[in-house]
This record gives sequence, structure tokens and C-alpha cells, in this order.
Amino acid sequence: MSHEPRAVSWTGTALSLLDQTALPRTVRRLDVRDVDTLVDAIVRLAVRGAPAIGVAGAYGVALAVAQARRENWTDRELADAVARLRAARPTAVNLAVCVDRAAARIPEGLDAVLAEADAVVRQDLAANRAMAEAGADWLLKRVDADRPLRILTHCNTGALATAGVGTALGVIRELHARGLLETVYVDETRPLLQGARLTAWELAQEGIPHRVQVDAAAAATVVGGLVDAAIVGADRITRNGDTANKTGTLGIALACAHAGLPFMVAAPTSTLDLATAKGASIRIEQRGEEEVLNLTAGAVTAPDGTRTRAHNPAFDVTPGTLVTALVTERGVLEVAAGELPGDHWN
Amino acid sequence: MSHEPRAVSWTGTALSLLDQTALPRTVRRLDVRDVDTLVDAIVRLAVRGAPAIGVAGAYGVALAVAQARRENWTDRELADAVARLRAARPTAVNLAVCVDRAAARIPEGLDAVLAEADAVVRQDLAANRAMAEAGADWLLKRVDADRPLRILTHCNTGALATAGVGTALGVIRELHARGLLETVYVDETRPLLQGARLTAWELAQEGIPHRVQVDAAAAATVVGGLVDAAIVGADRITRNGDTANKTGTLGIALACAHAGLPFMVAAPTSTLDLATAKGASIRIEQRGEEEVLNLTAGAVTAPDGTRTRAHNPAFDVTPGTLVTALVTERGVLEVAAGELPGDHWN
Repeated sequence: MSHEPRAVSWTGTALSLLDQTALPRTVRRLDVRDVDTLVDAIVRLAVRGAPAIGVAGAYGVALAVAQARRENWTDRELADAVARLRAARPTAVNLAVCVDRAAARIPEGLDAVLAEADAVVRQDLAANRAMAEAGADWLLKRVDADRPLRILTHCNTGALATAGVGTALGVIRELHARGLLETVYVDETRPLLQGARLTAWELAQEGIPHRVQVDAAAAATVVGGLVDAAIVGADRITRNGDTANKTGTLGIALACAHAGLPFMVAAPTSTLDLATAKGASIRIEQRGEEEVLNLTAGAVTAPDGTRTRAHNPAFDVTPGTLVTALVTERGVLEVAAGELPGDHWN
Repeated sequence: MSHEPRAVSWTGTALSLLDQTALPRTVRRLDVRDVDTLVDAIVRLAVRGAPAIGVAGAYGVALAVAQARRENWTDRELADAVARLRAARPTAVNLAVCVDRAAARIPEGLDAVLAEADAVVRQDLAANRAMAEAGADWLLKRVDADRPLRILTHCNTGALATAGVGTALGVIRELHARGLLETVYVDETRPLLQGARLTAWELAQEGIPHRVQVDAAAAATVVGGLVDAAIVGADRITRNGDTANKTGTLGIALACAHAGLPFMVAAPTSTLDLATAKGASIRIEQRGEEEVLNLTAGAVTAPDGTRTRAHNPAFDVTPGTLVTALVTERGVLEVAAGELPGDHWN
């Protein structure tokens, strides 16, 4: 795993983030030493991906504790800083879960908080490895083809989104390592192009064959038989398997269901939100209109002064009934066939 | 209809095209006087939309006849020029049909060719009006809601794509004219953004409420109940109702089927290809990779020198089984319910 980029690492005094807004043109790191700079980095998506922002959140609590010492914060000020960090993005459950884990160690001091953050990283690394193997095993058995597989993926779920090889992209890397991957169709993932910018960059670095396509091409790529399966990550999964993930995931799941192809979600159990019964209760982050409209190079103002507005939900919810396989570090559940996370892992 | 822009008009000596590559920033017209400039304009999408390129093709034959006189072409040179025009884009049937109609009049001279092109325009105008009314009538009856409708559309099917008010956008304009349109969700339509650039521009000019969204958001917009129906155009429709249209259409149809919402295709009968049994036989235009990759601002070259490549089909095929309603100037067929174009209009 040595050549995967480290999206988030602790330097001993600062949190070092690979600035994902600058990729693929520029590879640069940001050294973050205070909570509000980290919150800003999370909001701007300089660090993104549900597991990676979980890791960043855990170390962020350590930053908060160090900053509280430096700046003589009251307990209330420290608690407020942790709360701001926890709420930086609403949809992925990992951020809140990891911030809470690290914050629970605050009474024991900075070293205990750092030890908890280190444990988050170790567990994510181990979960990535376990998912990659379990996912590849399941897919190869299910597809049962005597040739390397062709996979569609959406957004970025790789080393840039996690502490290890990735979730969905970890499964894809594992197929490649086994010599059983033909190619990857990478959705560009508008509006912020995490697929075209980040996933294509990770795949190109490892020489994994891939083609970038517009998101709108995904349905015909699936229905037209250009791929054997789709694999995506997740930001939050409820008891019944409903899965919040990057906008566009639902359409891929519908196309797979129509074509009778496996639709796989790869996500660590830290992504499970078993306190929530179903996806309708998930809060979907609405992001700025400029992310959609700026690309259009100046939408024209109408004569009456109204402007073209944008609808920009960051995520959508795919019903568990469309999730053929949910891969976590504990194994595979065939959710669409009735194996619900809430029944198995409560 | 006076305030719709004219995408294509005949000046008496030249074909005047509204340059759709420059919108919405710049409104400029191109005066085209020879066949190869027109072919280039069609390939570059300076003029686009199945009915509009049909109109441009018909007048293009007149350009060819005039050019043949000016430049003393042989009959063979004229026939070659007409063939180049006919083949400028492969998927929409309208271009070939309209070029053939005008070319059949060549033996009668330039005035006869122009008369045929004028007839194409008149018929498209009339078809637009008839579709707008029939489509709006059908939708209002089908949705049966006691409030203005919310509609999703994809690509541009308006005045810029036709000689009149548009196909799908004509239906939307008609709902607005009747006071029965709440809002339009406009897919941006990557890679060339005909939705964000052209449809939003047409709607803004008329003060019709709309929001632009990334194409990947369409499935959740439909499944989440933000719209009452989707309406799109078509580039070619086969005997069984299989419909080739802009990439992304299939995904919208799948989402409508999942949600139980009407998926309407609005297209003149000149779009029907009743000689072809089904969509699998339609030739899908593959366009340049740079349309997809350039937006990504320099995809990084992998260490071994391979590059990120693109998959860029311009269209996809939606099975007739997913087409709730096909609206033409002859009325509405409920294709998914078994009313096949090939049975009704042979």
C-alpha cells in the first residue's frame, strides 16, 4: 500500500491534508493547526470522503485540545469548537462518530485523544483491506465470468477518501491486483468532478485501465452491457440498507436493477447509522449554487432580473431494495435479498 | 411565437445560424454560404437539435445547388456535397430525411429546392404547435393534479432546436402559457451543457421559473417527488418506440418507471424511423474525448505514459417499454402500454 497518497496524516504538531481541491494539476499539502481552518478545509472539500473526514475529525479533536491549551480556552470554548467540527458536514455519519470517539477521551488528555485518532486510522486501514478482499471474492463468485471484470464507479472512494486503499476503489484495486480487472468506467461526478479529478488520478498513478464518462452516460453503460457490476461507497447507511451517497448513485442502482447486474456498496461499519430506520430521515446536504452554475460560464439574466438558479444536493438516497451487496469489514450482506444491516449488526 | 429566437433562417442568399456554441454569453449569427462550412457548423454543434439540423440540411441542399452553379460543379461533385451534408451527424434521422426531401427537387432547380426547405420549416412549426397542445392536454389529464405542474427536462428541445416553440420545451411552454407550470428542473446536460446554456437561456428569456441541476441529480429529483413528469425530445425513434436521445435520457426514464411518473417523449413524425425495428440497430455517435476531459483541466498522465481516456457517446437508447407517452403532431401514443409507432403509423 506504500504508493497510495495519504489524504490525512498527523505530523506530531499539525494535521497534514493533501489538498484535494488542487488535484490533479497540483499535489500540495496543507498543514492545519487550528479547528476553524480544519472546518473550512472540510467544507471546501480540501479533505473529503466519509472515512477520511472521520479521520480528520478525530485528529481535529486533538487540534482542539492543543489549541485550548495554547489559547487558554474555557471548557465551554473547547466544547463549542468540537461541536463546530462535528457539524462541518451533515450527511456522512463518520465525521460525527469519529469526533465523538475522540472527544470522549478529552478528560484523559491530549495523548489519549491522539491514541483514539490513531485507532480510527488503524481500524479504517484494516477495514479497507477486509472490504477489498470480501468484495472481490463476492463479485467474482457472483459474476462467474471466465475473464477479467469491467466495473463502473462513481465519485472517489479511494486512498484519497480513506486511510487505506479505499472502499469501492479498494475492491477495484484488489481485482486489479488479482489480474481480474479489465477496465473501470469512471463517472466524472459533477459538480466537483471527484471522479475525473481524483479517481482517474489514483487509477492513472497505478496504471489501472480506465475511461472517464459524463455521469449521464452511466445508465447506458450499465444497460448496454459495457460493465459487469457497479461499485460505490457510502456516506450513511440506515437499518434497512438505504444508502446515502454522492448524487448520481441512485441512478446507477436503478440501471443495475434494470439490467440485472450487481450493485455493490462498499463502506466500513462506521458508515452504518443503525439508530435511523430508513433513508427518508437522512439529512441531505444542499451545497452552493455556484458549484453548478459557474461551469456554465455566466448564465444569462432574464429580462425581468430573475436569474437561473441551481438545485445542488450533494447526495442522494438509494433504497436498500436496490443494493445487491453491502460490503463492510465484517463481510457481505445481500441487502436487496433481505439481509438488512439492522437485523444482522444491531 | 414572435419572441423565440430563430435558430436557422434563410436570408435569400445565405443560411443564417444562431451560433449556439457562443450562447448564453454572446448572441451572434453565422452567415453560411457553402456546404462545407455548414457541415462544420453541424459537427461543431453551432446548429443542433434534430429538427433544426433537418431544417439546416434542407437549406443546405439549396446552398449546394447555388454553389454548384457558382463553381461549375459536375453532377458528381454536387451529389458528393449533398452526401457529406447528409452524413454530418449520424444519429438523428431528421437530417438525412430532410436532405433527401430537398435533394429530390434538385432536377427542378434551386427554387424548387428552396420551396421544399420552406415546407420543412412550415411543417416543423405546425408540428411544434400540435405537439405542444397534445402533450399538455395528455399530461394534465394524466397527472390530474389541482395545481401547476413541475417538470424535469434534459438537453435543449426548444426554439433553438427546432423551427418553432420546440418539442419537449414546446409542451413546457404550453403549460406555462396556460398558467399550469410551476417550475422546470433543467439537467445541465454534460458534456456540452445544452441544458444549462441553452434551455436555461430560453426559459430565462420568457420568465419561466427553472432550476439547473447536474445530470446526476435527475434520478433523485424524480424519485424524491420534486417533479410530476419528465419530458424530453428524440433524435430517432424505431418501430417499437425505442428512442435515441441525448445521453442521460435512459436514466431519467428508469427513474420515472421506478417512481411511477410519466416519461414523455415529444418529437415530430420526421423523427420516426419505421424502417428500423428496434433501438439496438441505431448508430450512436461517439464524439471527441476532449469534450469530457477538457473540463477536468488537465488529466494527469500516468507514470507509464498512458493517459486517462474518455467514453463519450452523444446519445443513449431508451426502450419503448419505458416511454409512457410519445407525442407527435399526429397525437399521443402510450408506447409503454403497447401502442407502438410501427403499428399505428406504417
